[in-house]
Amino acid sequence: MEDCPFCLGNERLTPPEVAVYRERSNSSSWKIRVVPNMFPALTPHGLTRERLVEGHFTAMDGFGFHEVVIESPRHNQKLSRMRASDLELMIQAYRDRYKVLSKEANVRLIVIFKNHGVSAGTSISHPHSQIVATPVVSTHVRNKCRVALGHYKKTGRCVYCEMNGWELESGSRLVSESDHFVVFHPYASRYPFETWISPKRHKACFGNIEPDELRELGRLLQEVIGKMDRAVGEPDFNYVLHTAPVEDENREHLHWYLQIIPRIWTAAGFEIGSGIYINTSIPEETAKFMRGI
Amino acid sequence: MEDCPFCLGNERLTPPEVAVYRERSNSSSWKIRVVPNMFPALTPHGLTRERLVEGHFTAMDGFGFHEVVIESPRHNQKLSRMRASDLELMIQAYRDRYKVLSKEANVRLIVIFKNHGVSAGTSISHPHSQIVATPVVSTHVRNKCRVALGHYKKTGRCVYCEMNGWELESGSRLVSESDHFVVFHPYASRYPFETWISPKRHKACFGNIEPDELRELGRLLQEVIGKMDRAVGEPDFNYVLHTAPVEDENREHLHWYLQIIPRIWTAAGFEIGSGIYINTSIPEETAKFMRGI
Repeated sequence: MEDCPFCLGNERLTPPEVAVYRERSNSSSWKIRVVPNMFPALTPHGLTRERLVEGHFTAMDGFGFHEVVIESPRHNQKLSRMRASDLELMIQAYRDRYKVLSKEANVRLIVIFKNHGVSAGTSISHPHSQIVATPVVSTHVRNKCRVALGHYKKTGRCVYCEMNGWELESGSRLVSESDHFVVFHPYASRYPFETWISPKRHKACFGNIEPDELRELGRLLQEVIGKMDRAVGEPDFNYVLHTAPVEDENREHLHWYLQIIPRIWTAAGFEIGSGIYINTSIPEETAKFMRGI
Repeated sequence: MEDCPFCLGNERLTPPEVAVYRERSNSSSWKIRVVPNMFPALTPHGLTRERLVEGHFTAMDGFGFHEVVIESPRHNQKLSRMRASDLELMIQAYRDRYKVLSKEANVRLIVIFKNHGVSAGTSISHPHSQIVATPVVSTHVRNKCRVALGHYKKTGRCVYCEMNGWELESGSRLVSESDHFVVFHPYASRYPFETWISPKRHKACFGNIEPDELRELGRLLQEVIGKMDRAVGEPDFNYVLHTAPVEDENREHLHWYLQIIPRIWTAAGFEIGSGIYINTSIPEETAKFMRGI
């Protein structure tokens, strides 16, 4: 597309790349580019990393990093049609950027995510994902960590490892299983067809994903999205890589995983008010349906 | 509308009403009807109110109440065009139902809300709001209560009363003020044009709203939605009445308020992953704009 900043040949329309992946190192073409977001939510330039007092409130400057992973040089490429090696490369790019950004002073949380389609919050249709590195661990993430720590203190086990085991044991919410991952609809899922891809190897930090896991994660991501496409007609979707805060990278009670949410339903007043999500789908039924595809 | 279950004359299309408000008590017409939701998220009939064990998880039956407040007999009525006395009656209906439902055994949280428009999650265009009474206090609400309690323990004051004072003092996020309410965009609002209507009288429980507050709340709700309509072109919106859990109705650290959120933006991957909301509007600027309308 002539005016798409993410298309091959339009590289001048983005800021210079922070990472690039090519078929061969001397190739002029590329397979994946990572560039700073042109309209960043956070930026590392010229901002204080300290907490500020603003009247009765505490604030921070918008310090941080916001990058875009351009997943393909082709405007109309889709994750569901990408080659296995290209998907692996995309996951590798996520991991490489995680490693670089997690070394930056004052970076405390890294969120890697994809918004696919207008209802999932994206304005650019060229396939891309995003990485945001923040100087705070949010209350939301702290609350999750606290619950996981509570389980660990009580049982001596990682609650995510336990869940993998429970889902394999029960099988009722299982979508698929591979050598290194368990794919399932979580118990009492918040969203219809919400799917987790959870590694069998206990690691708090996605940055420590291993080469054999990279390849499998790419393949499973494609498999889940392919199944969703057939189950509910190519829905818009978000996926998010949940990984421990940087300071907790090696903690025993946390565990990274990838969460996929098709946008076939809208949270409304009740969800905003209560934090309880009404899910009209039964995860045990949708998982069975997904297994059959 | 012939097949709209909420229109005057179609009362047979809904379950029998649990409350009705008429111009005169002997009138055959009505102004507001409250009926059980035909597709309830929760229902009081034939379900256990106890916690259940489901494998490794804890569950509950879908016990509870789910009611619809039909705000007008007219299909094309809009909140922004309703008469002051009708708005007051609507708020009164909310209060009356709160009082009835909060007396039910095992009801622990009551959420009163309105979804207006398709993107705000409603499928029926006839003006209506909803009331859900749940047998649990959600983690989300518990976390809010915990933070408010922390503030109270530290300072001896209700954090919501404090916020009212701060917003009046600063004025920068103030939308309007009346005898009994402070209307403002909260500091670091999550959503563009998010507005709170917060009572000056400290009360944890909406059910204790007083007659002079009923009238004013109706008027302010209409004023805020009218301003939003002009500011951002009649957006879809949600509003939610936040009130203390039933067991905390008289606590010093909690405070009811009404939150209004126009749906002009979509939470996406970053928000799901981090719980941090990127708001591209500056509340201090949008509040100034709203004051000027």
